[in-house]
Amino acid sequence: MSIRILGYAAQSAQDSLKPYRFERREPRADDVVIEILFCGVCHSDLHQARNDWANSVYPVVPGHEIIGRVLSVGSAVTRFKADDNVGVGCMVDSCQHCDPCQHGLEQYCEEFPTLTYNGTDRHDHQTTYGGYSEKIVVSDKFVLKVPDGLDLAGAAPLLCAGITTYSPLRHWNVGKGSKVAVVGLGGLGHMALKLAKALGAEVTLFTRSAGKEQDARRLGADNIVLSTDDSQMAAVKSRFDLIIDTVPYVHDINPYMPTLAISGTLVLVGYLGPLEPFLNSASLVLGRKSVAGSLIGGIAETQEMLDFCGEHGITSDIEIIQMQEINAAYERMLKSDVKYRFVIDMASLKA
Amino acid sequence: MSIRILGYAAQSAQDSLKPYRFERREPRADDVVIEILFCGVCHSDLHQARNDWANSVYPVVPGHEIIGRVLSVGSAVTRFKADDNVGVGCMVDSCQHCDPCQHGLEQYCEEFPTLTYNGTDRHDHQTTYGGYSEKIVVSDKFVLKVPDGLDLAGAAPLLCAGITTYSPLRHWNVGKGSKVAVVGLGGLGHMALKLAKALGAEVTLFTRSAGKEQDARRLGADNIVLSTDDSQMAAVKSRFDLIIDTVPYVHDINPYMPTLAISGTLVLVGYLGPLEPFLNSASLVLGRKSVAGSLIGGIAETQEMLDFCGEHGITSDIEIIQMQEINAAYERMLKSDVKYRFVIDMASLKA
Repeated sequence: MSIRILGYAAQSAQDSLKPYRFERREPRADDVVIEILFCGVCHSDLHQARNDWANSVYPVVPGHEIIGRVLSVGSAVTRFKADDNVGVGCMVDSCQHCDPCQHGLEQYCEEFPTLTYNGTDRHDHQTTYGGYSEKIVVSDKFVLKVPDGLDLAGAAPLLCAGITTYSPLRHWNVGKGSKVAVVGLGGLGHMALKLAKALGAEVTLFTRSAGKEQDARRLGADNIVLSTDDSQMAAVKSRFDLIIDTVPYVHDINPYMPTLAISGTLVLVGYLGPLEPFLNSASLVLGRKSVAGSLIGGIAETQEMLDFCGEHGITSDIEIIQMQEINAAYERMLKSDVKYRFVIDMASLKA
Repeated sequence: MSIRILGYAAQSAQDSLKPYRFERREPRADDVVIEILFCGVCHSDLHQARNDWANSVYPVVPGHEIIGRVLSVGSAVTRFKADDNVGVGCMVDSCQHCDPCQHGLEQYCEEFPTLTYNGTDRHDHQTTYGGYSEKIVVSDKFVLKVPDGLDLAGAAPLLCAGITTYSPLRHWNVGKGSKVAVVGLGGLGHMALKLAKALGAEVTLFTRSAGKEQDARRLGADNIVLSTDDSQMAAVKSRFDLIIDTVPYVHDINPYMPTLAISGTLVLVGYLGPLEPFLNSASLVLGRKSVAGSLIGGIAETQEMLDFCGEHGITSDIEIIQMQEINAAYERMLKSDVKYRFVIDMASLKA
């Protein structure tokens, strides 16, 4: 039998988010039914609620940084049981048979992964609804274990902001002795600082505002470089093995290229669109440098990240809000007025 | 005592190349004096003769694909002796103490390597003159051994076109099982086909002209993809681990990005300048792909490449010209009318 629940949805690009009653599917044999406790608020929630990417199917129930408690499991589920603390991130399914899926890279599934919301379920072809809701029903392969001891609210943003920055740090082999820089200090950027530091790297924050220094140091930055100051930029010439660029809008990456060491890589994790102004290939050729991109992470790697955060006591810096405050939170997010992630306390939905 | 010799030089950006008498330095203790037998003709020779990069110091004596025979060696030289067959590439010196130099990456020397021509000697501060000349005097650290059995004329282009394509193939770990594509079939492109094939890769040529198929297959291509044909491009979606882009002028790389496999890299080796039209970061993020650049190769790697070519009998496909034909050769090069590299028989200079 399907599960009737309450959530918050945008009914159109112009509407604010409002209460919305809908049904979750009748659990399948491999499904885990989860009571949602906390849901992080990602920039893409806002983009999709407002149809900024022109692919929204309404109503949109956003939310893909989900922490909850298992209510029940299907007959084929062995890895989870009632009362387990679990997480669900940006994906709830993938084809499972393509080469990327076979290699734990479900985020690059050749048939495209099923997104947690505004996606289409591979079995019943219904639009998926996300974590701004009481409960969610997810195939066990896409459910993550939350290590004991992690603050549950602070763990929610790990499911997107955490894995999005952890995955490139691991892919480009960051560890002790690595020199990593982070561009931008928001939800993604502050996680990049924490994770790079915990992996043993020397960590630098590039920022345009001098006021962020104290906070950046607390979050793990060894150095802060004001990217608007030419002499500070010149002082870090040829320094970084990896730059994680978290900026979510069009911006000039050319000024960062000289700060990469020989064979270094700048990886974009926050921006999809044209690289304006033109990227100059001379900065690539004269130093064997790369500009790359990276998208969240695979399921096994997301579990690895959660376990790593458990060992190192890493969670996101958050501001807890009530479900009813979501529209105001979006407005504040647009002004970067959040340190560093809003997390919705889903108990508020019952109030 | 300095060495008085004959060469060919451009006296200004407007002049054609003409005979020019000049002096080579008195050999130092670590110098090798080389009689030049053959010199390949690289596109950058033409660029610098004509001041296309606005950094030419006249007179310009081009030539950095040099094959010769040792005439004499300085007192500190132990690796070479008279009559050895040797090569000299794009660099004749570097600082030797920076981090890249210490790691065999002299091409990325932090103080910039001394170029074989249109550079400045680190000791006497004289402008360097290249291989369009009878003899050259080069520090032994920058002299390469030519393996026995390699055709000397065909080996000349290995010193630039060969190493420029070999280095990225090695850096990105191309070997048996790799899928490599090459964009452009000129001096660099034809070497990329030969070298990638010899390294064990499956090799594909992207070309805009259907007429190149037979030649490409002879040079090592397993497949040819007409880049102007959408269905052919779609058929190689997500296929290549590495694309070596040898095109020497501004061109759109966006159409090649979908043909990269997850985590694949497109490496530019022929073009310095803005990536126009705008590179779209979505193609990087949605597949963890990279756009990179690569410049020639270090000295140890150049020797490795020559030894590899010796083992596999690889040389460049060349058209031998007389020194006196160089200006006509430049005109033909501008029309891509050469298969695949002009090499000057320096004996003609004595005629």
